[in-house]
Amino acid sequence: MSAVPSQPEAIALASDHAGAHLKATLVAELERLGFRPLDLGTDAATPADYPDMADRLAAALADGRARRGVLVCGSGIGISIAANRHRHVRAALCHDVTGARLCREHNDANVLALGERLIGAEVAKECLATFLSTEFAGGRHAPRVAKLG
Amino acid sequence: MSAVPSQPEAIALASDHAGAHLKATLVAELERLGFRPLDLGTDAATPADYPDMADRLAAALADGRARRGVLVCGSGIGISIAANRHRHVRAALCHDVTGARLCREHNDANVLALGERLIGAEVAKECLATFLSTEFAGGRHAPRVAKLG
Repeated sequence: MSAVPSQPEAIALASDHAGAHLKATLVAELERLGFRPLDLGTDAATPADYPDMADRLAAALADGRARRGVLVCGSGIGISIAANRHRHVRAALCHDVTGARLCREHNDANVLALGERLIGAEVAKECLATFLSTEFAGGRHAPRVAKLG
Repeated sequence: MSAVPSQPEAIALASDHAGAHLKATLVAELERLGFRPLDLGTDAATPADYPDMADRLAAALADGRARRGVLVCGSGIGISIAANRHRHVRAALCHDVTGARLCREHNDANVLALGERLIGAEVAKECLATFLSTEFAGGRHAPRVAKLG
């Protein structure tokens, strides 16, 4: 009896045109980290409104194509507001690794939101790695997260 | 005929216990700037869950006690997720003045969210002043904001 090799976990990504370059960087980083990026668009040459892209990612989480995701727009603000309209999404706008850690430990965030115009690519890549590797702390945080549902 | 002196604009504030010290700083700053702070709690000695405090601020905007507000928790993440469950709230989690400007110009944000553990008091005060003094740019941003409603 041999072990069945596990399929790499899919991570969904979506951005508007202002976030497309950083999204492309994060697609490559996800491959390097051993994940399977599921790129829902857009690219820098194809304008797309951030609420539509947030809805697209929310749909991918709802139908099980991915369990976790990444959203990018110019500031990260608009796309995270739009994503959090969906009660199955907990989208954390992060600007540094500390936020990326806390959003997992305290909020059990399932979406990392980033602003291409506000943070650099190296910071974004470390946020991504931290977001993906940090577990929810549970305990006193669990009833608060339950109130977000 | 004499001019009727205008009432200072009310700005609603709410935080959990982890954001109460920064909220107190911002209450004083609002008074200094000529606004009327409407402090919905909590204080540092009285634990409160961030989703409940976000709901309390959302209710104050819905019933017209204030038109704009400020939310604080430890990271700003949980309380902004909770606030954005309400479709009349556009809560922008900001870490610097650039974000505070962009959330007004591009997203017509009506709530500023801040993380007491992640930014310093001076940065937070400048974010607040920028948030309150920056107009929505309209134009191409208007149909995107409409999709958040």
